Amino acid sequence: MKNNLRILSLGGLGEVGRNMMLLEWKGEALVIDVGLSFPEENTPGVDYVIPNISYFKNNNTKVLGAVFTHGHYDHIGAVPYVMDKIGNPPMYGSPLTMGIIKKRQEEFPLQPKLRINEVNNGSKTNIGPFNIEFFHQNHNIPESLGLFIETPVGNVVHTSDFKFDPTPTNAPPTDFKKLKELGKRGVLLLMSDSTGAENEGRSLSEKTIKENLEIIFKESKGRRVIAATFASLINRLQDIMDLSESHGRKVVIEGYGMKTNLEIARNLKYIKTKKETIISAEKARNIPDGNLTILCTGAQGEETAALMRIANQKHRVFKLKKGDTVVFSSSTIPGNERSVQTMKDNIMRQGAKIIHSKMMDIHAKGHAYKEELKEMMDMMKPKFLMPIHGQYSMMMAHKELAIEQGMSEKNTVIADNGQSITLSEKSITLGKKDVPVGPVMVDGSGIGDVGGVVLYDRLELAESGIFVIVVVIDKKTRQMKNSPDIISRGFIYLRESQELLTEARKKVTQIVSQTAKMKSAKDIKADMKARMESFLFQKTKRRPIVLPVVIEV
Amino acid sequence: MKNNLRILSLGGLGEVGRNMMLLEWKGEALVIDVGLSFPEENTPGVDYVIPNISYFKNNNTKVLGAVFTHGHYDHIGAVPYVMDKIGNPPMYGSPLTMGIIKKRQEEFPLQPKLRINEVNNGSKTNIGPFNIEFFHQNHNIPESLGLFIETPVGNVVHTSDFKFDPTPTNAPPTDFKKLKELGKRGVLLLMSDSTGAENEGRSLSEKTIKENLEIIFKESKGRRVIAATFASLINRLQDIMDLSESHGRKVVIEGYGMKTNLEIARNLKYIKTKKETIISAEKARNIPDGNLTILCTGAQGEETAALMRIANQKHRVFKLKKGDTVVFSSSTIPGNERSVQTMKDNIMRQGAKIIHSKMMDIHAKGHAYKEELKEMMDMMKPKFLMPIHGQYSMMMAHKELAIEQGMSEKNTVIADNGQSITLSEKSITLGKKDVPVGPVMVDGSGIGDVGGVVLYDRLELAESGIFVIVVVIDKKTRQMKNSPDIISRGFIYLRESQELLTEARKKVTQIVSQTAKMKSAKDIKADMKARMESFLFQKTKRRPIVLPVVIEV
Repeated sequence: MKNNLRILSLGGLGEVGRNMMLLEWKGEALVIDVGLSFPEENTPGVDYVIPNISYFKNNNTKVLGAVFTHGHYDHIGAVPYVMDKIGNPPMYGSPLTMGIIKKRQEEFPLQPKLRINEVNNGSKTNIGPFNIEFFHQNHNIPESLGLFIETPVGNVVHTSDFKFDPTPTNAPPTDFKKLKELGKRGVLLLMSDSTGAENEGRSLSEKTIKENLEIIFKESKGRRVIAATFASLINRLQDIMDLSESHGRKVVIEGYGMKTNLEIARNLKYIKTKKETIISAEKARNIPDGNLTILCTGAQGEETAALMRIANQKHRVFKLKKGDTVVFSSSTIPGNERSVQTMKDNIMRQGAKIIHSKMMDIHAKGHAYKEELKEMMDMMKPKFLMPIHGQYSMMMAHKELAIEQGMSEKNTVIADNGQSITLSEKSITLGKKDVPVGPVMVDGSGIGDVGGVVLYDRLELAESGIFVIVVVIDKKTRQMKNSPDIISRGFIYLRESQELLTEARKKVTQIVSQTAKMKSAKDIKADMKARMESFLFQKTKRRPIVLPVVIEV
Repeated sequence: MKNNLRILSLGGLGEVGRNMMLLEWKGEALVIDVGLSFPEENTPGVDYVIPNISYFKNNNTKVLGAVFTHGHYDHIGAVPYVMDKIGNPPMYGSPLTMGIIKKRQEEFPLQPKLRINEVNNGSKTNIGPFNIEFFHQNHNIPESLGLFIETPVGNVVHTSDFKFDPTPTNAPPTDFKKLKELGKRGVLLLMSDSTGAENEGRSLSEKTIKENLEIIFKESKGRRVIAATFASLINRLQDIMDLSESHGRKVVIEGYGMKTNLEIARNLKYIKTKKETIISAEKARNIPDGNLTILCTGAQGEETAALMRIANQKHRVFKLKKGDTVVFSSSTIPGNERSVQTMKDNIMRQGAKIIHSKMMDIHAKGHAYKEELKEMMDMMKPKFLMPIHGQYSMMMAHKELAIEQGMSEKNTVIADNGQSITLSEKSITLGKKDVPVGPVMVDGSGIGDVGGVVLYDRLELAESGIFVIVVVIDKKTRQMKNSPDIISRGFIYLRESQELLTEARKKVTQIVSQTAKMKSAKDIKADMKARMESFLFQKTKRRPIVLPVVIEV
């Protein structure tokens, strides 16, 4: 066991997001990415979910360094919450990736200074037992880097999020020669992006997308173009600004995340636009419709994002009008379909035209489809394959693809978060799922303090609200003083339910008079809770949380 | 105006669900369908949404009768909540539709007896100024009926939910001859289903689906087939039971809604299976895998539905095993994508194989696609078209299709719920949206009593929970008695937050000592609320609802 490499994911397997992996050799570890994921429906109030790092508390593993493949939040977003807890090791990533990390860190002034190192395509870094060479990959953010890692047991390739693109925007094309050269060095293990593994064929090139977007710009002569996309798709933002410039349009950027990303990217000269192209919303009032592009966030139907405010007539400057073309250069994240549909309907009701990616190829995910994944395997010729990044069904599809390509079932391992993999020159072995990886939720300034009980209560409260009963009992006489106080939220509209309220008070008074003489405050409370729950259910068929407070004075 | 027909939708336009429309002539109305819709994410605790019927309270309209096109809940589900409030008029529908309505009504014993009339394909009924002829339509529930309505201004055709199917399951094929004959009578207005109007081509025939399902049955020899679909797709249930019989399998039905629907359909002889085919889960323990089909609900990832319980190892009898084939003969309803994906992943993790409708044509929606909608227009040759049923984007696509077919823009009207349409022999006119159609929510036994305030509170409670502070003040001394009681739910895990709790108590005590001498209980409460909210936000960056109770004794 001592001469084996341990590979462990704390997030990112069987899920999209929260990527964090470590390669460990004799107690020393290299961390790859420290990302977050966005919460699901059943965790109300939670801002982010971050990787569970109890592994480091329970073991003496020393983190020697952390490498970051690219600047998307599912790969870097947990940095402010995690880095100091794993010993604030040196960090490596491209200038853009590090620029985004540094900008974010400004929001966490109490955190220790990060130990940042910038690397590029071709950079080589030694981190303890690991020699890492970074190589260029195409994705939808510039400066994405794959990792070629020499380990004591053999070479490991980590593709990061990637797709092959012979004609990308804002980045060099995929360097197939380099990839083949890496493959020729001998690859023991390929860890490869699975996000697109359920899609047949090849992903779209950014060039195709730009060409289609250009058609829209041509057809929208004299009218406004409102383009919504993800704030993180820096290359798409570049496309839309390029097209605006070549069609004589100024661009208004709306949405905080998009503005921030553009600022970082422009400072680092990844975004190339004329200074005068970008104008404020206020200045746009004087620009003719045909000379204006509004580039905004909100393609997911997020309540407070720019496009939603425009659609709901709540934007401080822009109102939709007949003739506007609203372009969704985006896909809908699973779970958001209903709010996106509602927003699109609202936009159409106001006479604007909608063009989305199911009507025309104006969005590409940044992930390799089946044919590209096959090519990656062909070039790397790995002994072992480990599908990474993606839902379990995506990793399974990736595995099946590898088997079709002639790999053996046992050389293709699907692991879950928290399940160690032992890698030697000759074998790859899946361990038990024994490392704690339960989601750590960030809510406000609390990290991990919102757990099962609190979330359960939140869901219960959301379902039927709360019913608080306050009763004061005279210690000596055991009689109720005053009339009971009843406060309720989220249960029923009390002002219109006076009858129920009166009956409830009567019931409370009755319970006190039946119990106060014999029972302690604690027992009265228990009785009150049970009987009032049943009373309220009988009256309303609802089950609010009943909270009795019994005070003896 | 007196010689015009008024058409008004109280639900079902610009949304999928809650269908309810009325045709009104000189104060007398015919109602078409009385359906419900299922609540959205931002209305926690709400069971159903039903049409708003304040129109009837505000007008003297008399409802002469209500016709029901088919037995799906989005067309009949609000019957128990609405019928008696619109005067309990006579109801007309097919035996199966009425069977489902009657069964449902048993859950509402306090409602007056429904006035039920059964009609069939070809039945003619006079309801005041309206002569209605019912005609056979294909959908995915048997006995769907379209409506040919002679009105004083001309003939109106209501397609109901439909698709054309030359080879359906469990129902006669579309009777094109009949449809053409109806068209020849002259159609002033066609009201036609828009749900499939964004889909190119033609919908799948049920025959194709059955053939594909048969392939799965053949390939699953010796192994269990677990088939999940909607409980309401009676024809699909028939397919799966047919295939099970022909492949020597017994069928276990799991899921309350599915069992109920099958019982009704079997009693009315719509489902034809051998008696011995259906067995209980308990009996299935002794049946070899290759002779067993589990037909269940839960294809939407609903928490408590049968498939979810099986996937989560919470089912009382069935556990997944390697080799099981799980068939999703369904589509995912927008909004459910994330929970369906999680469930599918869980199923795959346990070694079962999944086949879903994106991999193979094993599900068809019951709605006409573009080519079929064109054919319907061709056969009916209406003067006016009103797209009904569906999101706004679907109705718009339907309208665009009509214009492509040569109809004029002004003869094609898209209305919203609550927007009256005035129809005469010569013209169709859209009125203002002046009829109240805000959603009426059903929660437990309450209808419409969960409104803005209650829902707002529920969402707030879900976000950060509640923090209740109870303080008792001596009336005379204005000193606090006892220590303040603090109760919280959904905010923070109090047992692990003793420090915060101690500080909060101190703060409360301080506020009381600063205010009690000068201020009334009401003012102390207001102070306490503001200051404690700010205190808790500063400490946690969360905003629980703070509820202070100040009692003077």
